Amino acid sequence: MNRRLRWTSAVLFLPTALAVLAATPRGEEGQIGIRGFAPGRVAQERELEREFARIPDAKHAENHLRRLTSEPHMAGTAGSRRVAEWLRDRFRSYGFDSKIVTYRVWLPLPVELKLELLEPEKETLATAEQPFQSDKDTYTMRAVPGFNAYSPSGDVTAPVVYANYGMAEDYRQLEELDINVEGKIVLARYGRGYRGIKAKLAEDHQAAGLLIYSDPADDGYAAGDPYPRGPWRPMSGIQRGSILYTQIYPGNPLTAAASAAGDEHKISPSEAKSLPRIPTLPINAQDAAAILMRLGGEQVPRGWQGSLPLAYHLGPGQALVHLKLVMDYRQRTLYDVISKLHGANDDEWVILGNHHDAWVFGAADPSSGTTVMLETARSLGRLARAGWKPRRTIVMCEWDGEEPGLLGSTEWVQDHLRELQAKAVAYINTDVGVSGPDFKSSAVPSLKGLVREVAQEVPDARSARTVYDLWRERLERGQPPRGNAERGQPWALADGDVPLGALGAGSDFCPFLDHAGIPAIDLGSSGNYGVYHSLYDDFYWMKHFGDPTFAYHVEMARIVGTLTLRLTEADVLPFDYTAYASEISRAAAELATKAKDSHDSALVNKPDWKALDSVSAALAASAARVAQALDAAAAAPAGSGRANELDRGLAGVEQALLAPEGLVGRPWYKHTIYAPGSYAGYDAVVMPGIAEAIELHDAETAQREVASLTAALERAAARLDEVARLAKPVASSPRAQ
Amino acid sequence: MNRRLRWTSAVLFLPTALAVLAATPRGEEGQIGIRGFAPGRVAQERELEREFARIPDAKHAENHLRRLTSEPHMAGTAGSRRVAEWLRDRFRSYGFDSKIVTYRVWLPLPVELKLELLEPEKETLATAEQPFQSDKDTYTMRAVPGFNAYSPSGDVTAPVVYANYGMAEDYRQLEELDINVEGKIVLARYGRGYRGIKAKLAEDHQAAGLLIYSDPADDGYAAGDPYPRGPWRPMSGIQRGSILYTQIYPGNPLTAAASAAGDEHKISPSEAKSLPRIPTLPINAQDAAAILMRLGGEQVPRGWQGSLPLAYHLGPGQALVHLKLVMDYRQRTLYDVISKLHGANDDEWVILGNHHDAWVFGAADPSSGTTVMLETARSLGRLARAGWKPRRTIVMCEWDGEEPGLLGSTEWVQDHLRELQAKAVAYINTDVGVSGPDFKSSAVPSLKGLVREVAQEVPDARSARTVYDLWRERLERGQPPRGNAERGQPWALADGDVPLGALGAGSDFCPFLDHAGIPAIDLGSSGNYGVYHSLYDDFYWMKHFGDPTFAYHVEMARIVGTLTLRLTEADVLPFDYTAYASEISRAAAELATKAKDSHDSALVNKPDWKALDSVSAALAASAARVAQALDAAAAAPAGSGRANELDRGLAGVEQALLAPEGLVGRPWYKHTIYAPGSYAGYDAVVMPGIAEAIELHDAETAQREVASLTAALERAAARLDEVARLAKPVASSPRAQ
Repeated sequence: MNRRLRWTSAVLFLPTALAVLAATPRGEEGQIGIRGFAPGRVAQERELEREFARIPDAKHAENHLRRLTSEPHMAGTAGSRRVAEWLRDRFRSYGFDSKIVTYRVWLPLPVELKLELLEPEKETLATAEQPFQSDKDTYTMRAVPGFNAYSPSGDVTAPVVYANYGMAEDYRQLEELDINVEGKIVLARYGRGYRGIKAKLAEDHQAAGLLIYSDPADDGYAAGDPYPRGPWRPMSGIQRGSILYTQIYPGNPLTAAASAAGDEHKISPSEAKSLPRIPTLPINAQDAAAILMRLGGEQVPRGWQGSLPLAYHLGPGQALVHLKLVMDYRQRTLYDVISKLHGANDDEWVILGNHHDAWVFGAADPSSGTTVMLETARSLGRLARAGWKPRRTIVMCEWDGEEPGLLGSTEWVQDHLRELQAKAVAYINTDVGVSGPDFKSSAVPSLKGLVREVAQEVPDARSARTVYDLWRERLERGQPPRGNAERGQPWALADGDVPLGALGAGSDFCPFLDHAGIPAIDLGSSGNYGVYHSLYDDFYWMKHFGDPTFAYHVEMARIVGTLTLRLTEADVLPFDYTAYASEISRAAAELATKAKDSHDSALVNKPDWKALDSVSAALAASAARVAQALDAAAAAPAGSGRANELDRGLAGVEQALLAPEGLVGRPWYKHTIYAPGSYAGYDAVVMPGIAEAIELHDAETAQREVASLTAALERAAARLDEVARLAKPVASSPRAQ
Repeated sequence: MNRRLRWTSAVLFLPTALAVLAATPRGEEGQIGIRGFAPGRVAQERELEREFARIPDAKHAENHLRRLTSEPHMAGTAGSRRVAEWLRDRFRSYGFDSKIVTYRVWLPLPVELKLELLEPEKETLATAEQPFQSDKDTYTMRAVPGFNAYSPSGDVTAPVVYANYGMAEDYRQLEELDINVEGKIVLARYGRGYRGIKAKLAEDHQAAGLLIYSDPADDGYAAGDPYPRGPWRPMSGIQRGSILYTQIYPGNPLTAAASAAGDEHKISPSEAKSLPRIPTLPINAQDAAAILMRLGGEQVPRGWQGSLPLAYHLGPGQALVHLKLVMDYRQRTLYDVISKLHGANDDEWVILGNHHDAWVFGAADPSSGTTVMLETARSLGRLARAGWKPRRTIVMCEWDGEEPGLLGSTEWVQDHLRELQAKAVAYINTDVGVSGPDFKSSAVPSLKGLVREVAQEVPDARSARTVYDLWRERLERGQPPRGNAERGQPWALADGDVPLGALGAGSDFCPFLDHAGIPAIDLGSSGNYGVYHSLYDDFYWMKHFGDPTFAYHVEMARIVGTLTLRLTEADVLPFDYTAYASEISRAAAELATKAKDSHDSALVNKPDWKALDSVSAALAASAARVAQALDAAAAAPAGSGRANELDRGLAGVEQALLAPEGLVGRPWYKHTIYAPGSYAGYDAVVMPGIAEAIELHDAETAQREVASLTAALERAAARLDEVARLAKPVASSPRAQ
């Protein structure tokens, strides 16, 4: 059953080749239609999807993952190159036109990482992740030690202050408690926000250094059994990760907003605004406990106590810590793998992507996603070999250097910006493709309906029911999963249906959506994943906890494949702009209310809230007209040459939402509706320019951003009106030209 | 400023000796009146209170506490007798008529306490509390090891199931999870309810044994720094305590509801319903961790995870535990110390009480309360020596055997039941008199106003403001104290004022209120008290954490003394029955609603809710008439002989609320409004017979208890009507006779 789609017209099952459907109709003899497909093509599409669904296979998936996790393969190392070459060969063997594209980027690797307690007694810290006998891979000698990519080198000795999660609200509370972190080493726990925000805040508060640790409250024993008894982080587990200020811009820090190809030194490291300035090191819970138990000062405020077996204090007190980091910064080579299955229309691209670089073995992150991509590619290839040719071209990308800062994807997007903006119709991202049984997704609002529909088609891996049914039931039960997921998802039904999150940053959809304006989807199957970015995210973990039977890898390949087929085969691209317009109206109204509630008269009066409100309404009206026009078009044949134009129009609305000048203070981010927060703890901030300006009581910026958003919405409405005109049968309206 | 008292009459300052005041009036020249005092006597009372307040002294208090904590003094040991003798001598030296009253009671002491892990490896548990160099007292060789008084002897070997707090809702959840504790040793943590309820529930569920431990989440490092760095329970700390089923009846288990004096064997141990039947042992967090880390089975449900550094499982799994307890049960002697300061009217007694027996040194529990009593007695004695004679008699009681089960107080109350019911006007209890700076109190509703008023008179120990002001501000801030207090208090303003709790059980007010119907007050100054019932509740703890300057001991002596002087010196006892009636109406209405919401037609229809509702309303009307009559009496002189009758009438209303037959299933508990819960986690259950019958869907019992309460309220209303008649000037109403 389709639960969400409006039944827009009762007379839709006409034998037209290009009956364009804005919503899913019920076809002849009660057959359920498919969004974007003419009734006459529904049966054919269903048969194709059924054929596709039979191919993905657990044994294949397990073997892909075995291969992908056979050695550590961090970006900038030979392991990463070897994986790229193997992937290229795999895609070629499936019939794809596959090649490796290289980029030279400014990328550090650690040479020396030293952390020691000097007072009140000497103790060597920065302890390594412990190996476990049951999992031989944990004895590898090639795992990079715990480090934060893009930390500078440094050598500091200082007392320590505990700053909870090290987010903006934590510093505000420290200030209220009269605690100054200037010249101190800040100890903060992971969670509630991107670690690059923690680093930026510590830098802004003039800390001497930053230690980020994994508190057992968040992904360790307080959530569940630690590895290898259970899937959660053991006491010695370290979360590696980049602290590049991707919230300012991702990609090669020395080629801001430009292609890296052949142009390696556009700016110098000292000019690069995305490079952190204070030494930062991730540590495990046992090192953190050794420091925390020596801190003096007041006991921490409510909510700051974690799950280590001691009473947390704010510091500083007697504890004196020495932190010395030596990093080897240089130009290193990335290996993106770009694979195409050419369609009848080679000028419309449905792009799929995942990264292949991993901090160590990267079983869940990212190899589970790559496994899903490979099973999808193998299955599409099998269909192609049997004679099928996609209507649109499928581009499957395996990015390098995602972990240090979305490097491979950002460079490629910047490199192909114009071509992408002309051809790409959507970008589907997987990353941690499978870490458990719970399907989740984020997407632009125009594609949320599509994701829900596809989830209704694919059977759940454990039961006879659909992925959608289980997704919904999980939310109806209303209990969030254990542990603090690094990337949050809404955890309750929204407007009576399963919610899809907003896309911020944190994976390779970012340059596509935020910089290039390509409509994007991110998806995965998640679970109790406590070994994120550690040595323990390996094959043994996946085989014992993440997906022992690989059934969820198969499920995800079916979902990704079905999504791909819906997008490549549709008669008209299945975008729903009424949903988008309604989310925009709601967000704009919320921000206007927030400004009003701030009792800051400048915030209330300077920005033209009225104009924003009326253009939001206009956008909704335009979106409704498009839906109507597409419905009407279903009842009257249209020239088939118009399909292409319609597609271009529909996919292009997202680009209309870009502000050419970008957000205030971070011009690389062009999207007016979605961006990662610069200081906030959330991955995505909706209408980020305005939202953050309100937060900072910056009426000037709020005014500029409201104007910029208003202009973008006007452009989007105009683009939608064009689509409506294109969709309308020529005869029916003189206004059509 | 008096914040709460209604201004009942504008013409109250008449020069009458017996102007009876139902509320605090403003006297001549704006002087604030005192509830129960004729305007002409207010100045005199104030002067007396001022004189009193100058006497309590921190140095004296500190020395009392030093003496009281000089050795362990558990009930049934020579230490307890020595303390009793010392107390008798102290009271005598202050001018009291003091004597020791002895009772022989059935009381166990431990001989052997053995706990060991047999599987998956052998480990000896029941580890002792560790001594700390900074606190020499912790090296004592005379501390009783951790044990639960009234556990039977036993020798069991069984797998273990973790049952969270071991309360009724926890067993319900275990049942839902299909976990049976039959034949298992249950491991439960302290908190959320009396340990005797935990033992009863484990017995009812046919467990083989019970271990109760202190989780650091509740009073250990998760709340704050453990002793001796801070005031919270260290990993080796054990909470001793009785598991006697005092919820059925307290006192000597072999003399249920009768005097123990000279009548030692009314029933045999096998007949005693208050004696637990399965071996039970309290253990420290480190022993609990040793067991918990070996448990198998599913991970615990949300909310069951404590703060030990591991993921909690339900069990059983491989862990096999051997528990062997040998208890020496025999008749032992208790030493109550009863001290009187005779008043002009020796037939009206204001009784104060605290226990003197302690599990080990008992600095906070109970010696801080005894110190407060001693400073109160010393100060009253000084006033008496200077020529003052109280109007009513003051009786100060130091109970023995409170810890094992309110033995000393219960035996004495049963022994003097008739005399008490004729003479006692109120009972003021301290127990943990001081464990920190936060004043708190529970009382019968008729005396809550009095406690608030007295708190407005006494300056706070730290500031120039009153105890009341700080009490109120603390609640307005709205943040509950750290840790899980063993005896909860409401933590928010109620009806715009500071709330006083309901009296259930857990200290010596229980036999007075619940069995004898004497209006009662319990009070203390509380704080971060993590060493409850452990070795560490000693002088060092008090001197470093509880009350380093003993200023709060002085503050509490001023409060207890002022309360005493208000009660002994009042022209008419300052009871407020309109407040009582209004709490009763509200509670009755809530229970009727609860019955209705249960959708159990028998619960809705069988009990006569209508009769209860109308008698509640009648009670409120009667209470209002009393208030009016007392107001009016203030304006017209009354014969002075009538004061006595009025007092008797006012104090006797509480006894009217007793049901002669007692509660269903536990006839010792006679009060229809207050009793400890038999299964619930709360200390006090309001209208317990009805509330628990609703909980259990027992319409039969609900019917009986509603009828019993209705009858009690009728009696109370009649008693109030009598008081109103007595108060009314003879001339003003022909109805007066």
